[in-house]
Amino acid sequence: MGENSLLLTDLYQLSMLEAYAAHGMADTAVFELFVRKLPPERGFLLAAGLEQAVRFLEQMRFTEDELAWLTDSGLFAKDFLRGLAALRFTGDVDAMPEGTAFFPDEPVLRVTAPLPQAQLVETRLINLVHFQTVIASKAARMVLAASGRQLVDFGLRRAHGAEAGLLAARAAWLAGFDASATVMAGREFGIPIVGTMAHSFVQAHDDEATAFERFARVRPNALTLLIDTYDTERGAATVARLAPRLVAEGITVAAVRLDSGDLAAHARAVRGILDSAGLRQIRILASGGLDERRILALCRSGAPIDGFGVGTSLTTAADAPALDCAYKLQEYAGRARRKRSEGKATWPGRKQVYRRYRPDGTIAGDVVGLREETIEGEPLLQPAMRNGKRVASLPGLMEARARAASSLRGLPAALRRLEPGSVPVAISPGIRQLAAELDRASQPDAAR
Amino acid sequence: MGENSLLLTDLYQLSMLEAYAAHGMADTAVFELFVRKLPPERGFLLAAGLEQAVRFLEQMRFTEDELAWLTDSGLFAKDFLRGLAALRFTGDVDAMPEGTAFFPDEPVLRVTAPLPQAQLVETRLINLVHFQTVIASKAARMVLAASGRQLVDFGLRRAHGAEAGLLAARAAWLAGFDASATVMAGREFGIPIVGTMAHSFVQAHDDEATAFERFARVRPNALTLLIDTYDTERGAATVARLAPRLVAEGITVAAVRLDSGDLAAHARAVRGILDSAGLRQIRILASGGLDERRILALCRSGAPIDGFGVGTSLTTAADAPALDCAYKLQEYAGRARRKRSEGKATWPGRKQVYRRYRPDGTIAGDVVGLREETIEGEPLLQPAMRNGKRVASLPGLMEARARAASSLRGLPAALRRLEPGSVPVAISPGIRQLAAELDRASQPDAAR
Repeated sequence: MGENSLLLTDLYQLSMLEAYAAHGMADTAVFELFVRKLPPERGFLLAAGLEQAVRFLEQMRFTEDELAWLTDSGLFAKDFLRGLAALRFTGDVDAMPEGTAFFPDEPVLRVTAPLPQAQLVETRLINLVHFQTVIASKAARMVLAASGRQLVDFGLRRAHGAEAGLLAARAAWLAGFDASATVMAGREFGIPIVGTMAHSFVQAHDDEATAFERFARVRPNALTLLIDTYDTERGAATVARLAPRLVAEGITVAAVRLDSGDLAAHARAVRGILDSAGLRQIRILASGGLDERRILALCRSGAPIDGFGVGTSLTTAADAPALDCAYKLQEYAGRARRKRSEGKATWPGRKQVYRRYRPDGTIAGDVVGLREETIEGEPLLQPAMRNGKRVASLPGLMEARARAASSLRGLPAALRRLEPGSVPVAISPGIRQLAAELDRASQPDAAR
Repeated sequence: MGENSLLLTDLYQLSMLEAYAAHGMADTAVFELFVRKLPPERGFLLAAGLEQAVRFLEQMRFTEDELAWLTDSGLFAKDFLRGLAALRFTGDVDAMPEGTAFFPDEPVLRVTAPLPQAQLVETRLINLVHFQTVIASKAARMVLAASGRQLVDFGLRRAHGAEAGLLAARAAWLAGFDASATVMAGREFGIPIVGTMAHSFVQAHDDEATAFERFARVRPNALTLLIDTYDTERGAATVARLAPRLVAEGITVAAVRLDSGDLAAHARAVRGILDSAGLRQIRILASGGLDERRILALCRSGAPIDGFGVGTSLTTAADAPALDCAYKLQEYAGRARRKRSEGKATWPGRKQVYRRYRPDGTIAGDVVGLREETIEGEPLLQPAMRNGKRVASLPGLMEARARAASSLRGLPAALRRLEPGSVPVAISPGIRQLAAELDRASQPDAAR
């Protein structure tokens, strides 16, 4: 399907490029990517997807094949299309490193490049950064809810396509998940991959015990048995009966998985059955329609669950599958720009986000200021690309995961408990003044 | 990223295959894909994604490269991995043709194949069919709400990755959308592609009128101007002023687009401004946070809107981004199978869905029966693959779109109005009897 293709764009980007080309509009443009407001279910977001965005920009070019198709479409002038063959990304990117917690109105990524380049990349850049940010932000809530218990991504089947499944595995791991069931996520990103067994395996055998034994022999070192195909407690009793025989073969049952019914009640009953059989070391994993609210409730109920497999609610971010984000022109040819559409006005200029911390290391508040203003705090936007090349210091996935863990520790206590709360974000006097100046200057516009 | 790779699977599928291989379990398995229950916001679903599922099955194989990686992973026995090199899909698929309306408990797709093949394909098969079904079902609601007005997919940027954006464009078009903004959807699927302009284009110019004129010259035959960057009504007045000059150059303004504020009020005001200038032929398009509820409200309010651009709510199916669907073993080695997990029990056996119609052509009700039962009605599952090859009669995208239109006409009136409602789905006596027999036969299981 060609996930690197520049045809992964909106038609209007190409139309605008044709008009820019006709008038030689190739001065430096500054676009910023930000979230206008949080979904009601979110108190913070976690930046993710920068690595894929940088990779996209580094390799972007139209292939001959694509240009031939565009020519055949008859939608564009041939001279313009010929010019596209040489198009590369030669600009700069500044961005919050992956794993940084952020809030509305804060630019997470800034592109500074000749106008046509910065315009064309809008669609895929949002597509890549938005999605992983959606998933990392959702996964982070599960990480907070599970407070140290194991979390595994089971979501590929219900993810929105292949790329969604893979990038969700990455974003979840970045946010603190322990592993993914998706084999390709292991290959592409080096994420630990783990697996249990499916109901169909049990069903394909005439009885559950035979199924368990056969599965045990192919997974002797990482054996998790699914015990709810027919009756959870009977399944646990079968495991208790088989375990000594398996141990004699050198096979350890590492865990059992519950996937239906009242998970807390079943976990207690199963724990009792296993403990009575002296199998205290067998862990209990739960899955089946879990999200962070259910995980939090199960943990608070004291249910003896050691880990959670989470699928649909993670990889679709079911309660907030999209963010109200935008990639907007803030400056062109050295002049700040401002969109003033009702309810969607933007703050103009090249910006930086300054973060201040309390003595205990938690975030006190952020200020969004102009890049050239002097504002106290840690500047969150860092160089990611210069002149079309990634900077050597761009953090890798392990660093992003460490940063995410640190970001979660830095959240106010209410947000860590998934309770309503917020971090104050101030817009600097410099930005407000610039916006007022632009609004005044544009009043004559109506008369033209 | 390799959207055809067999590593796009859950690790447990490979573990189960290893156990099947160890015990020569390769008899015929029958798996069915179905939805357990509808999300609260849905009264019907529209089947989609079969074409991609068939393509996946036709070409499925492990590459040498993938097998080498699996070998290096140390997770599997080498003999087993060597055997995977020859793995192909040689089975049958029966499915509801794309564009068919369906309801809970109805199998939409059945795989009949040697157990390892049918097992391995589960993850990607669900991934492909689930997603397009989610989107086609959402898009169908917008088609019903818009009652004939133009609908365009604007969703790529907020879709969950590249494949999601592309397949959402396909599913939306299948369901009755008129076009997509995604260039690659035009290339891959032959879907009409259309585009307007972005706010950044207007902002990059010193005034809106110059931006409009420049854009007009590159889109003389399909010109839509975005008029809300600064002030919607002033934008409309600028269009009215420019239009005669453009006509003199042979350029027609086809439409204006509103993207913010009270769309109904702005549409009325803009219509007035354009009509006063004798520009009755200029159409008004609306976009910005639209979903089927807003579209329905705008249409019922009589707002003079001729078409809608829909992004996020379409490509993420924001109110129901996933379905409670499953792919379950219903028969193995000639014996029906039943999962009995609490709240997730399945109906056993190879099934068919029989649909009966009222004299006016709307659906009276469905019966899910065993394939060999004699039940009145149109059988919905049709051959899609035989012996690993697609059948010649597999409908293409145009046929699917026609079927979707016919399916929507066949829905009960309440569902067509997006009101609560349902279609009765009966489970046949044959299935109920088979389930009871399996439950009785399996009681001794506990004692083993």
